[in-house]
Amino acid sequence: MTLQFKTQIKPNNSIYGSSLSLMTDLYQLTMAAAYFGQQMHEREAVFSLYFRKAPFGGKYAIVAGLETAIQYLQNLSFTENDILYLKTLTDGAGSRLFSDYFLRYLSNFKFTCDIDAIPEGTVVFPNQPLVRVEGGLLAAQLVETALLNIINFQTLIATKAAHIVQAAQGDDVVEFGLRRAQGVDGGFSASRAAYIGGCVATSNVLAGKKLGIPVKGTHAHSWVMCFDNELSAFRAYAKEMPNNCIFLVDTYDTLEGVKNAIIVGKELEKKNQRLIGIRLDSGELATLSIEARKLLDEAGFHHTKIIASNDLDADSIIGLKKEGARIDTWGVGTNLVTGGEQSALGGVYKLSALKTHNKHWQDKIKLSENSSKTSIPGCLQVRRFFNSATQKYEGDMIYDVSSPQIDRTDIIHTFDGRIIDQPNDFGSNDLLEPIFRHGNLVYEQPKLSKIQEYTREQLSLFQPILANYPVGLEQNLYQKRKTMIEQHKK
Amino acid sequence: MTLQFKTQIKPNNSIYGSSLSLMTDLYQLTMAAAYFGQQMHEREAVFSLYFRKAPFGGKYAIVAGLETAIQYLQNLSFTENDILYLKTLTDGAGSRLFSDYFLRYLSNFKFTCDIDAIPEGTVVFPNQPLVRVEGGLLAAQLVETALLNIINFQTLIATKAAHIVQAAQGDDVVEFGLRRAQGVDGGFSASRAAYIGGCVATSNVLAGKKLGIPVKGTHAHSWVMCFDNELSAFRAYAKEMPNNCIFLVDTYDTLEGVKNAIIVGKELEKKNQRLIGIRLDSGELATLSIEARKLLDEAGFHHTKIIASNDLDADSIIGLKKEGARIDTWGVGTNLVTGGEQSALGGVYKLSALKTHNKHWQDKIKLSENSSKTSIPGCLQVRRFFNSATQKYEGDMIYDVSSPQIDRTDIIHTFDGRIIDQPNDFGSNDLLEPIFRHGNLVYEQPKLSKIQEYTREQLSLFQPILANYPVGLEQNLYQKRKTMIEQHKK
Repeated sequence: MTLQFKTQIKPNNSIYGSSLSLMTDLYQLTMAAAYFGQQMHEREAVFSLYFRKAPFGGKYAIVAGLETAIQYLQNLSFTENDILYLKTLTDGAGSRLFSDYFLRYLSNFKFTCDIDAIPEGTVVFPNQPLVRVEGGLLAAQLVETALLNIINFQTLIATKAAHIVQAAQGDDVVEFGLRRAQGVDGGFSASRAAYIGGCVATSNVLAGKKLGIPVKGTHAHSWVMCFDNELSAFRAYAKEMPNNCIFLVDTYDTLEGVKNAIIVGKELEKKNQRLIGIRLDSGELATLSIEARKLLDEAGFHHTKIIASNDLDADSIIGLKKEGARIDTWGVGTNLVTGGEQSALGGVYKLSALKTHNKHWQDKIKLSENSSKTSIPGCLQVRRFFNSATQKYEGDMIYDVSSPQIDRTDIIHTFDGRIIDQPNDFGSNDLLEPIFRHGNLVYEQPKLSKIQEYTREQLSLFQPILANYPVGLEQNLYQKRKTMIEQHKK
Repeated sequence: MTLQFKTQIKPNNSIYGSSLSLMTDLYQLTMAAAYFGQQMHEREAVFSLYFRKAPFGGKYAIVAGLETAIQYLQNLSFTENDILYLKTLTDGAGSRLFSDYFLRYLSNFKFTCDIDAIPEGTVVFPNQPLVRVEGGLLAAQLVETALLNIINFQTLIATKAAHIVQAAQGDDVVEFGLRRAQGVDGGFSASRAAYIGGCVATSNVLAGKKLGIPVKGTHAHSWVMCFDNELSAFRAYAKEMPNNCIFLVDTYDTLEGVKNAIIVGKELEKKNQRLIGIRLDSGELATLSIEARKLLDEAGFHHTKIIASNDLDADSIIGLKKEGARIDTWGVGTNLVTGGEQSALGGVYKLSALKTHNKHWQDKIKLSENSSKTSIPGCLQVRRFFNSATQKYEGDMIYDVSSPQIDRTDIIHTFDGRIIDQPNDFGSNDLLEPIFRHGNLVYEQPKLSKIQEYTREQLSLFQPILANYPVGLEQNLYQKRKTMIEQHKK
C-alpha cells in the first residue's frame, strides 16, 4: 500500500502539535468503514448539532467554540502514523478491523462538506441547530465527536461566564481557573470561552499568548511566606514591580494585611507610583471588604481597588453584593472553568436528512419515549425576529430551508403545537451563516474581542424578557415533524 | 538581546505541539521576576502538592497524572516566541512588565529541581504530599500551576473511575466520554486516568493511539436511521463488520431491536460468526436488560453480552444492580470524564520549607482561620505500614525527612493530636519516590497497563477498612506544627 500524506496546517492559535483526526469515538470509524463497504459513504446527509436543555438552570446559552472547530476541520486528514495505528486494531475474531482498501481511502480523505453555524457569542436556545453539516455521509458523521467535544465545552463555559458577569453587575470578572481546570485544554479553551462570555482577563499566560486575551497576576501567599514578615514582602514586591502592586493581604491576618498594604502604598506614592489594589482570598469577604474599603478610604486610597477570590460563583457573588460587599473585581476560578456542579453541556448531533439512492432528500427523525428527546427533521435554519419599536428581539423560529414558503411568522411550540408568538416581522435575520463550502472556509473569523462585544450587545437585546422569550418551530416544520412521529408510531 | 533556544523534545504520547511553558498563571512569572530582582531566585525551597478532602464523598483518591507532568517538566523551557510575547506585557503604568535582564534569564532557564512523587495508581489520602519539589525558589514556584492542573484533574478522574469500577462489581466498565469532555485534553487525559482507575477500554481513538489503551466501538443510532428499517441496518453492519457486532437496539423499540439482533445473530452463526453483544442506550435499563437477556437466552445466545449506556454513574450502576439488571458491560461517559457534579479536585501547592540566607532550612507554614486549611511544614514523606498477618495496610504516617528519629510508629491525628494508631511495624514503605534529580529524570515510568494493575492490587490491600484507615502525622512533625501555629498566633 503506497500512501501519500498532506502537510498539516498548524494554526498559530492552537496548542496541538499532532493530528487530531483520531480525536473521535471508534464507532465513527467502524461506521465509516461500513458506509464505505456499502458504497453509502458519499450519500448526501445533513446533521444538526444542538442541545436540549440550557445549562445552569437558565434559559439560554452563549454559543462558543466555532473557531476551534474550524481549526480541527481544516486539519482533518489522517497521517501515516494514524493509518499505521488503525492497521493494528483487531475485531472479535482477531482479524484486522479495517481493510487496506478502506485505510487507503482514509489516507486520501479530504473534508468536503458544507457547514453552516451560528456565530460565536450568539445567544441561543434549546433545540436550535448551532452547527449544520451537509455532505457525504461518511465525512459528515466522522466529525461528530470532535464538534460535540469542542462546542459543548466552550458553550458551557461561555454561558457560565455570562451568568457570573451578570451577577457581578458591571464589576470586572477575571478568570483564574487554570490550576483546577480539566487538563491543559480544559484550561486553555475555558479561558477562551470565559472571555467570550464577558470576563475581562485571565491568569492563563498561554491563553494570553495564543489568543490575545489580557492577562493579570501579581503574587501568591508563598511570596509573603518567603520574607520575615508581610511588610517586608510587600516592600520587596513594590520595589521589583512598582506598577503592578495588588497585594494579597490574607496570609496572616487580612486587616493587618490591608494596613501593611497602605504603608507600602504611601511609600509608592512618594515615588509617584500607585497601590493598584489589594486582594482578599479567604474569610468573610463582605465584612472584610467593607472594613478594607474603610481603611483604604481613610488613608486616601480611594482609587485602590479591592479584588476578591475564593471559590466564587454566580450565586456567591449575588450573595456578597446583597451583603453590601465593597468588591471591585471578582477573581473566579474553578466554578467558572469547569462549570462547577454542571460540568457538561449535553449537546447532541443528529442525522436530520439523507438523500435516497435516486437523489431525493428524505427527512430523518430520531424518536424517543421522552418526547423532548425526539429530534427535528430537515435542513434547519433559525430565524430571529427583531422588533424595531422596542429595539428587542421578539422570538426565534426554527424552519427547514427547503420549506415551500415561510411567509407566516407564527412560532409554534415544538412539542405541544400551540402558537406561542406571532411576531410582527419588523425585521429578522437567519442565525446560521455559511462557514465551509465544499470543505473550503468561506467565513471570516472575527477577533476574539469582537466576539466578546457581540455577546454583550446580544444579551442587551434580549433583556429583560429572556426568561419568556418565544422559541419554536415554523408551521410547516411543526406539521412535518408531527406527521413523521405519527407515521413512525404506526 | 541575543537569545539561544533549545530544541523541544516531543514525547510521542503527548498531543501538544507548542511549548507549554506558558501554561501557568501570570503571577508565577511576576513572582519569578521579583525573586530574580531580589536575588532570591536560587534560594532553596520545598513545596508540597496535596489535596485536603477526598473527592466524591469518599475517603481516598487514586493519584494520577505523573507521566503527563514529567512530559511537561522535561519540555520546560521558554521559546523565542514565548519571550517575545512576554516582552509585550505591560504594567499599570504602561511600562514593560518584564525587563530584558529577566527575560534573558528566562530564555536560558533550565529546570534543575529535585522532585519526589507518589507513583500513579497509588491509593492516597488527604494532606499527603503527592508531589514534593525541592530546588531553586523561582523554578520550584514556577511549576505550581501546571503540576496542579495535571495532577488535580487526572487524580479526580482516576478516583471517579475507581468508584464506578467498584460499583460495577467485576463487570467491565468502558469509558465513552469524549464528546462531552472538557475540551481535547479533557477527553484525552480523562481516558488515561479512567484506564488507570480500572476502565478496560475507551472509545477515544486518539487515546488508543497515543497511550495504547484498548479502544471499543461499533455503531450509533444514525447508522440504523440510514436504512429503511432496523433489520436491514443490522444486516448491512454484519456484512461489513462481521466480527464486531454489538448492535444498538433502541433506535425505535428496544425489545423489537433485540429480536432483530437475534435474527442477524442467527445469520452470523451460519457463517461461524458471533453476535458479540447488544447495547441498550435508553429506557428502564434494569427491566429492559432482564427482558433482553431472556430473549437472547431463549434463542441460545448465552454468550451474547448486554452493554448499557445512558448517563450512567456509580450510584445509578449500584441502583441497577439492586434491581437485578442483567448488564455485562457498562459504558460510562460524561459523569466519568468530567467528574459529574464534582468537577475539580481542590489540590494545592504550598511552600513548606525555605533555606535562609545562611543556608539553614527554615520550616514554613500557611495558617488559616480554618484549621484544616493550615499547611504541614517541612520536607515531607509518607510512610505506609503493612501488616503481614492480615496482609493489609495498617496506616499512613506523614513525617519530615529531616526529623531526628522516627523509630516510633505512633500515628497522630493531624488536627487534634490524638494517637489514632500504633501499627506494629511488620513492614513499611515510603510512598514518595525520586522522580527528578537536578532536573534529570531518574524514574523509570511504568507502562499504563502496569499502573492499572497496581491500582487494582493497591485497592485490594485496603479493603474493607478503607473508611477508617488511619492517616496522620509522625510525633515530632505534629509537635513542630503545633509549636509553629502557636508561635504565629502570638
